[in-house]
Amino acid sequence: MNTKLRAAIVGSTGYGGVEVIRFLQGHPHVEITSVISSSNSGERLSEGFPHLSEIMIEALDAVDIALIAEKADVVFTATPHGVSAKLVPQLLEAGLKVVDLSGDFRLKDGSVYETWYKKSPADEALLAQAVYGLCEVFGEEVKGLDFVSNPGCYPTATLLGLIPAVAAGWIDPHSIIIDAKSGVSGAGRGTSLISHFAEINENFKAYKVNQHQHTPEIEQALTQVAGEPVVVTFTTHLTPMTRGIMSTMYAKVNGVHTDEDFIELYKQYYEGRRFVRIRDKGKWPATKEVFGSNYCDIGFAVDERTGRVTIVSVIDNLVKGAAGQAIQNLNLMMGWDETLGLSLTPIYP
Amino acid sequence: MNTKLRAAIVGSTGYGGVEVIRFLQGHPHVEITSVISSSNSGERLSEGFPHLSEIMIEALDAVDIALIAEKADVVFTATPHGVSAKLVPQLLEAGLKVVDLSGDFRLKDGSVYETWYKKSPADEALLAQAVYGLCEVFGEEVKGLDFVSNPGCYPTATLLGLIPAVAAGWIDPHSIIIDAKSGVSGAGRGTSLISHFAEINENFKAYKVNQHQHTPEIEQALTQVAGEPVVVTFTTHLTPMTRGIMSTMYAKVNGVHTDEDFIELYKQYYEGRRFVRIRDKGKWPATKEVFGSNYCDIGFAVDERTGRVTIVSVIDNLVKGAAGQAIQNLNLMMGWDETLGLSLTPIYP
Amino acid sequence: MNTKLRAAIVGSTGYGGVEVIRFLQGHPHVEITSVISSSNSGERLSEGFPHLSEIMIEALDAVDIALIAEKADVVFTATPHGVSAKLVPQLLEAGLKVVDLSGDFRLKDGSVYETWYKKSPADEALLAQAVYGLCEVFGEEVKGLDFVSNPGCYPTATLLGLIPAVAAGWIDPHSIIIDAKSGVSGAGRGTSLISHFAEINENFKAYKVNQHQHTPEIEQALTQVAGEPVVVTFTTHLTPMTRGIMSTMYAKVNGVHTDEDFIELYKQYYEGRRFVRIRDKGKWPATKEVFGSNYCDIGFAVDERTGRVTIVSVIDNLVKGAAGQAIQNLNLMMGWDETLGLSLTPIYP
Amino acid sequence: MNTKLRAAIVGSTGYGGVEVIRFLQGHPHVEITSVISSSNSGERLSEGFPHLSEIMIEALDAVDIALIAEKADVVFTATPHGVSAKLVPQLLEAGLKVVDLSGDFRLKDGSVYETWYKKSPADEALLAQAVYGLCEVFGEEVKGLDFVSNPGCYPTATLLGLIPAVAAGWIDPHSIIIDAKSGVSGAGRGTSLISHFAEINENFKAYKVNQHQHTPEIEQALTQVAGEPVVVTFTTHLTPMTRGIMSTMYAKVNGVHTDEDFIELYKQYYEGRRFVRIRDKGKWPATKEVFGSNYCDIGFAVDERTGRVTIVSVIDNLVKGAAGQAIQNLNLMMGWDETLGLSLTPIYP
Repeated sequence: MNTKLRAAIVGSTGYGGVEVIRFLQGHPHVEITSVISSSNSGERLSEGFPHLSEIMIEALDAVDIALIAEKADVVFTATPHGVSAKLVPQLLEAGLKVVDLSGDFRLKDGSVYETWYKKSPADEALLAQAVYGLCEVFGEEVKGLDFVSNPGCYPTATLLGLIPAVAAGWIDPHSIIIDAKSGVSGAGRGTSLISHFAEINENFKAYKVNQHQHTPEIEQALTQVAGEPVVVTFTTHLTPMTRGIMSTMYAKVNGVHTDEDFIELYKQYYEGRRFVRIRDKGKWPATKEVFGSNYCDIGFAVDERTGRVTIVSVIDNLVKGAAGQAIQNLNLMMGWDETLGLSLTPIYP
Repeated sequence: MNTKLRAAIVGSTGYGGVEVIRFLQGHPHVEITSVISSSNSGERLSEGFPHLSEIMIEALDAVDIALIAEKADVVFTATPHGVSAKLVPQLLEAGLKVVDLSGDFRLKDGSVYETWYKKSPADEALLAQAVYGLCEVFGEEVKGLDFVSNPGCYPTATLLGLIPAVAAGWIDPHSIIIDAKSGVSGAGRGTSLISHFAEINENFKAYKVNQHQHTPEIEQALTQVAGEPVVVTFTTHLTPMTRGIMSTMYAKVNGVHTDEDFIELYKQYYEGRRFVRIRDKGKWPATKEVFGSNYCDIGFAVDERTGRVTIVSVIDNLVKGAAGQAIQNLNLMMGWDETLGLSLTPIYP
Repeated sequence: MNTKLRAAIVGSTGYGGVEVIRFLQGHPHVEITSVISSSNSGERLSEGFPHLSEIMIEALDAVDIALIAEKADVVFTATPHGVSAKLVPQLLEAGLKVVDLSGDFRLKDGSVYETWYKKSPADEALLAQAVYGLCEVFGEEVKGLDFVSNPGCYPTATLLGLIPAVAAGWIDPHSIIIDAKSGVSGAGRGTSLISHFAEINENFKAYKVNQHQHTPEIEQALTQVAGEPVVVTFTTHLTPMTRGIMSTMYAKVNGVHTDEDFIELYKQYYEGRRFVRIRDKGKWPATKEVFGSNYCDIGFAVDERTGRVTIVSVIDNLVKGAAGQAIQNLNLMMGWDETLGLSLTPIYP
Repeated sequence: MNTKLRAAIVGSTGYGGVEVIRFLQGHPHVEITSVISSSNSGERLSEGFPHLSEIMIEALDAVDIALIAEKADVVFTATPHGVSAKLVPQLLEAGLKVVDLSGDFRLKDGSVYETWYKKSPADEALLAQAVYGLCEVFGEEVKGLDFVSNPGCYPTATLLGLIPAVAAGWIDPHSIIIDAKSGVSGAGRGTSLISHFAEINENFKAYKVNQHQHTPEIEQALTQVAGEPVVVTFTTHLTPMTRGIMSTMYAKVNGVHTDEDFIELYKQYYEGRRFVRIRDKGKWPATKEVFGSNYCDIGFAVDERTGRVTIVSVIDNLVKGAAGQAIQNLNLMMGWDETLGLSLTPIYP
């Protein structure tokens, strides 16, 4: 490859955008040619993020479609919900490839989007065209595309933990309960009492019980895999840490399957996919074991007393749950090895 | 009352023991006359706990039954599992009142204890006699007793959250799933990798999935209330904070009951009991809202889509889950107002 | 005492105000008769602070001088800098006693206030009249007063650690360097990037180096004690925790004085004052050892190699550094035992 | 380069060793051929460190000189103090290159080592030969060597912050006070009360005041640069986080030099050295801005009122303070670009 693919990041001053930048800097086939911020254009990126001093010195560009089209080949839109719905069509129109990190193109049914996001949905035709880039499940469909809708953080951890069992018919899809816990960076860089240090530190909170907007995203994918309508119980919690999501999932086992059976089933399902790691019997993953990396680690415990399986799945919400999977999707779109630029070991401790 | 009740604490250099001391110092009818430690006798308590300097200066006594009987009227045994089983009979024999904070007298069936604790059970007759001091449920039985078995931390948060609904027949006891999260102080002051700062900080872990020794304690109480054998799915997690437990609980609703119905049911069940607080509709408690206090706060969300109720219950594991409830039990044993010495406001933030 | 002193708290929805409320609830001679908030009047206090549910149910009052004068005898003004300057004269005029927790009445020289606070100073006559309520140093002056200016958090930890040595002439006041570290609650409940969880957690920051507004407050008191103009080097840092301040202080020792000499000097200086505790030789206090309490703990290390002494002083910034000392000042104003309502043991762990 | 340099890590199951592994995995010219642990040989590395599952599967070797010499060209000894003193001579004897991360070869004077480390010093001849690998200061001496003594964490942050000013004569070396704060990972993976979560979380502690073993290491380098004996006041603190060191340093300014002068002086001193970054006037670095990376960031504030300069220097203690600088030293030893394998962006947030 003679020349590198030129990448622009819209939303460079958010946590998702900054994380896309971190990974792209080590990507062998990509160079960052524009960092874009609607709110801070004209400033230097390192003013708000001194950790990037002497590394990234580019001035922040404004959101200007013509300029983006001139500077870049691909755009990562790490923009708020509602913004992407309007921005992405213009970027595609201008001939750019797009990986969208927002929730605007994940739900096929605009009315469901409207119900859960309280915003107007994106253009119907584009929604129909958008592929849901859960790489280890739908990655084949992503290859060669110009536009991918990147999954949400909770759905990524949850679906990678549930889909092999649902696809195999080993668990009753109507019995699924998902108890999810997230670090606070998932709430973004905007200031509010819910991310105020003194309110979060030494505190564990439930929030949006039965009301989180990622619920229909999870149900849509499970419905597709199960071949019948699936609704789930989904609870979200904030845990006093910055990064990491754990989904602890419960379901009735159909028939008799042991821990070892589940482990084997999942190892086969994810064979050849480096970013999913299955724990041995009696071991459960912890969020720190994937910190800063694109891994999703999964463990199992079948309880004969209750006939239920407990599945524990962890990711770094900003990496596999956002920026890392976005780059993995770019790799798939371009026909590259999906691990390019993502081969970083988790940071421990 | 002319003279105060004299109290001894065995296990004064553990977190549970220190917390008993903190509360007893403000108790109007009790004075601490002996602080006891098997491992540090002869030292001053404030050597290991400088926060008690100039407050508690007593030398640590050894575990000497005759000496305890001479110095005290009541003993709090904040001792490891297996130790209480041997110590408590001697203390009772010596005419002392006892509140036992260990797990040794909670399970009626010695063989169940042996299975889950991997230790020999306590004397059968004493097990039969021991009353399980979950104050807001079984408090009437505690009145006038000389010996109470204080509940575990997870069971306290869990049972206070489930029992009114199980007792009313509003939820299917065979559908109960308990996803519990605890701060690290629950693991005690002994050093191990599981409480090593660098391994816990910025980390969220599952542990003992389906294997926690508090499982049969929860099932025994639910079985009693339901009037039929109940087994539950119970998962424990460590969250990177010191104090606090949240149990997020899931069950199928029998019939049709709204959030408001559950709120009303629980308010009636706990009427007159100051330490249980029921949240308004759409509000869920956070662990920090009970930090340092004897409260248990509970919230509800019924989901019509799934027919399930989600119940969120929080306590401070060292207070309502240990030392605070132990003193509440003493108050009940003595026929005092159950709130004596426990009227401290949660510390926030 | 037949009737209780009636207290109002202005700024009840800030961290300082909430902490005044926590302590006053256990005060034997005071009852809270009005909780006041300029921004949330009409709401219930427990809406923003569910930890106070079933404990404090009073509606929040507006800032109305006539109403306060009707309801209360004493007012705690936990108001932002600039607000107290205008409010306090009106409250005094209305015949109320006032303990002011802001920085508006601490500096005698209005022009110094203007330089460091960038606001107009309070009325000159009232500034002259205001007594600086550092209880263990200037407490005698507080007795019988109607109005006290409560010290800042950093100055309290720092001055209690320095004044006995400066007063004795044991250290060179021109050599003083103060390296202070604070938990984040000191920044208040207002949201901003500097108290955003993801920016603070797992981070240690210096801020306002040589520019903190508490500098002149420290210098004014040291100048008074030393009898000559003193300027200090004062650095402030944020440490990833909610509560607690440590001031690590350095100075040249005049003459030859050992660790033991300093310990003895300080024990004598603070004799009879329960809230200052001096550590033994070779022991240094940690912030958690005063968590939630009104203590200030101090330790010493003299280094013969350099001729310098290192003094380590810790407080809970919201208690001894704000609400606790404010109540201690009220106790002194009223001629009561200074420990009334403040006898709470630190919470550990 | 056809073949890669083969590296062994002794002490692979410590935090320093694991961090050497993380960076070497991305090093273009090095391959890991042996991971060694005296305590866990025979086990798989990923048993204790599941974050390395599917990444590193090698069995842990025992400490066997002949085996190491067969498998490797270079050895990183991340071993406890006292162990390296005996191990390194054997490794050198066997013809291996060595980067030693312990404190055993940093102090030229064996008696000083004995005083501060309470252990027997290493062989005198080898001590004389050992070069102190503070890369940005003594890096020229490292080139072509077979053995380097890697600096300590506190000395790295401190010396990079002080040396340019001392070398220029801009500060009085006899006035230097160093107030250092570290995350808890610096205490290693061995369990003890000082790294127990419940004792560290929400706590800020001073420890080893005037007694830390890094004191003579700092003084030795400053003495060399100043050309006269230098003793310093050095205080260490634990801050409730895992990684990161900040040294806040104070000194009298010789003559008149502004913030801008210092910034310019340091930029010149470190010209061409990518891993030291100088902050702009009025900006001070925070530890999170170097998290997970090999950077050392430095900021300045000159105070005209006191005639002192405050210098703030931050590093990641496990990277620039240990593993990262060790690899930087290897790069220098081999004559490679010093940044090879180390070009990772700090992780933020």
